[in-house]
Amino acid sequence: MDGSLTGLGDISAPGRLADPDEGISAYELALAARNHGLPLEALRYDVTPPGLHYVLVHYDIPATDAADWRLTLGGRVLRPLALDLDGLRARPSVTHRVTLECAGNGRAHLTPRPVSQPWLVEAVGTADWTGVPLAALLAEAGTAEEAVEVVFTGADHGLERGVEQDYRRSLPLSVAADPAREVLVAYEMNGAPLPPQHGSPLRLVVPGWYGMAHVKWLRDITLTATPYAGFQQSVAYRLRGPAPDASDAPDDPGEPVTLIAPRALMIPPGFPDFMSRTRVVRPGPVPLTGRAWSGHGPVTRVEVSEDGGAAWTDAEVDHDPAHPWAWASWHTTWTATPGLRRLTVRATDAEGHVQPLAAPWNRGGFANNLVQRVEVLCTPEPATR
Amino acid sequence: MDGSLTGLGDISAPGRLADPDEGISAYELALAARNHGLPLEALRYDVTPPGLHYVLVHYDIPATDAADWRLTLGGRVLRPLALDLDGLRARPSVTHRVTLECAGNGRAHLTPRPVSQPWLVEAVGTADWTGVPLAALLAEAGTAEEAVEVVFTGADHGLERGVEQDYRRSLPLSVAADPAREVLVAYEMNGAPLPPQHGSPLRLVVPGWYGMAHVKWLRDITLTATPYAGFQQSVAYRLRGPAPDASDAPDDPGEPVTLIAPRALMIPPGFPDFMSRTRVVRPGPVPLTGRAWSGHGPVTRVEVSEDGGAAWTDAEVDHDPAHPWAWASWHTTWTATPGLRRLTVRATDAEGHVQPLAAPWNRGGFANNLVQRVEVLCTPEPATR
Repeated sequence: MDGSLTGLGDISAPGRLADPDEGISAYELALAARNHGLPLEALRYDVTPPGLHYVLVHYDIPATDAADWRLTLGGRVLRPLALDLDGLRARPSVTHRVTLECAGNGRAHLTPRPVSQPWLVEAVGTADWTGVPLAALLAEAGTAEEAVEVVFTGADHGLERGVEQDYRRSLPLSVAADPAREVLVAYEMNGAPLPPQHGSPLRLVVPGWYGMAHVKWLRDITLTATPYAGFQQSVAYRLRGPAPDASDAPDDPGEPVTLIAPRALMIPPGFPDFMSRTRVVRPGPVPLTGRAWSGHGPVTRVEVSEDGGAAWTDAEVDHDPAHPWAWASWHTTWTATPGLRRLTVRATDAEGHVQPLAAPWNRGGFANNLVQRVEVLCTPEPATR
Repeated sequence: MDGSLTGLGDISAPGRLADPDEGISAYELALAARNHGLPLEALRYDVTPPGLHYVLVHYDIPATDAADWRLTLGGRVLRPLALDLDGLRARPSVTHRVTLECAGNGRAHLTPRPVSQPWLVEAVGTADWTGVPLAALLAEAGTAEEAVEVVFTGADHGLERGVEQDYRRSLPLSVAADPAREVLVAYEMNGAPLPPQHGSPLRLVVPGWYGMAHVKWLRDITLTATPYAGFQQSVAYRLRGPAPDASDAPDDPGEPVTLIAPRALMIPPGFPDFMSRTRVVRPGPVPLTGRAWSGHGPVTRVEVSEDGGAAWTDAEVDHDPAHPWAWASWHTTWTATPGLRRLTVRATDAEGHVQPLAAPWNRGGFANNLVQRVEVLCTPEPATR
């Protein structure tokens, strides 16, 4: 389904790693200016307003028309479907609160840095997604016996490492059709139609999986009898490594990127310097709060350190049982004393995964859940204001 | 009203210029990850959805509460006012469609590059702002004879080049009180309450002026008998230069940044490569469309070049007379022939200001309206798809 172009090497190069002392390049800056993360103080909202939720668009936001939109569901099914928005809205709907994180979150902290969207730690957001359970649509269409995989196609079209493509990803049928996974074909975000950048008018939501699985501008679902091997499945979004000096197109097929690794983030306390974003607090008790999540299960522990990770204090973690796919809240109190501190927070999930203190490296810079570090200067109140 | 802290030099340094071969720094990347521009394909919307409109937050988005919000209007007035949201909503309202652009737009194209928010060309957006005319509030309060300036204070608090401050900017009373300038205290964006990042619950809108004048999270308006000389007025947002080798704290007071210089942007045609953002089109006629605006008056001419600015073709410019403060549309058709092209577009306004082909340089990187350049590879349709 993907077509290779020839002669496009100059504008669509293979992936590469940055040189050791190479600053962020013009290409990376162009992506950082288009896409955006969650400003960390917006962790205060249980549900992230759409304009603060992280956004990663592979190609362009397509010009879509909800009135004319058709979602086709075909391939290895018994009764192919073609659904418009009214048809989807007429079916029983569900709403799930889901924390979504980009698989490349944390990439810009890696050494060497894979050259791509240069996320620090902020590529996350939580929204209430309303739509039709994918399992119900698959049951309605009837899956053929030989079906093993479900391929989702979006309307965004572009070129990537020389391959012209519509954005396309798959899920194993065992995941897609499992009612317990609660995969959703969503038409509303926070009670309103999807905004353009979040997939208007339809997107897939795959709770617990990194963002690349949540196909936006969803126009087709095709069941196949063999695993899907397209670009975004077998070339991109693989955990390949760990040798940074290997060839740039290694034979290593790598492991697929799937569930979100655990991560905790804190709302940076106090107030910031404009340019360095370093924080300023006054001496005394400082409330620390934030969020934590994992695609592998509930976060069971959040710890905070004021010395970069030498000593740790447990924070209180609050889960809302109504929203198992959403981030948990955490809070503690830190007693600030004058000086420059490096606050650090780490999460542990129910499967025992703990955030690392040193970045795990892979060639694409995926699933890097290195702990967040926040520099805070504790300084007395100035004499004059 | 600003207070200087001592001993904060390490976390709140003076402004600086990047070294000639210095890539984007970690500090600039942190700002680029928080703030975001308009993805250029979103120029297709007459009114920009809030999550696609550019956002620049100096410090943190404050945690505000619309129910408890008070806007005070005092200083050199006859009858000080303290208004809550209900009080403002009870007054006669107006709605203006306004194109807003960051004063630092284009900064990252400068050589040497001033180190700050590294915008390319995308720090723009257009919205319908609803609220109360500032002129009406000033008339209600009654301006004292000696009043010359109006100082606006936001709720965002931070440190900038060693100065702790609430974000604060002023306008000459002659601008603020002029009904023809249509300055607005806005409580709605596109018919909904302001989103957090756009100033919830109240912001100033100053049609035709760069974004620094549109104070968000507006909590106080104070009339003064002398011009305001605070940080954001007399230190930041000044056009200083042009000698890049001068000291970093030059005595040159510079000129204030005020009205938006003319700019045209095109929707990049065809489809993009993910990493380079270079465009691909097929040979033949390619529609080119975009927007153009100026704070000095209507855009009277938009020209397009396919050879980087050697030869120019006029585009058609469409103004909507109902929205004099909003961008105009433009369109033309380009006949693409195989090869790599550098499309360029430039605007001219009613005062005769024309966008430059070489970047004007100033120390803060403000009001840089260098023409946009879009690389496009025209290539035949691939044989297989």
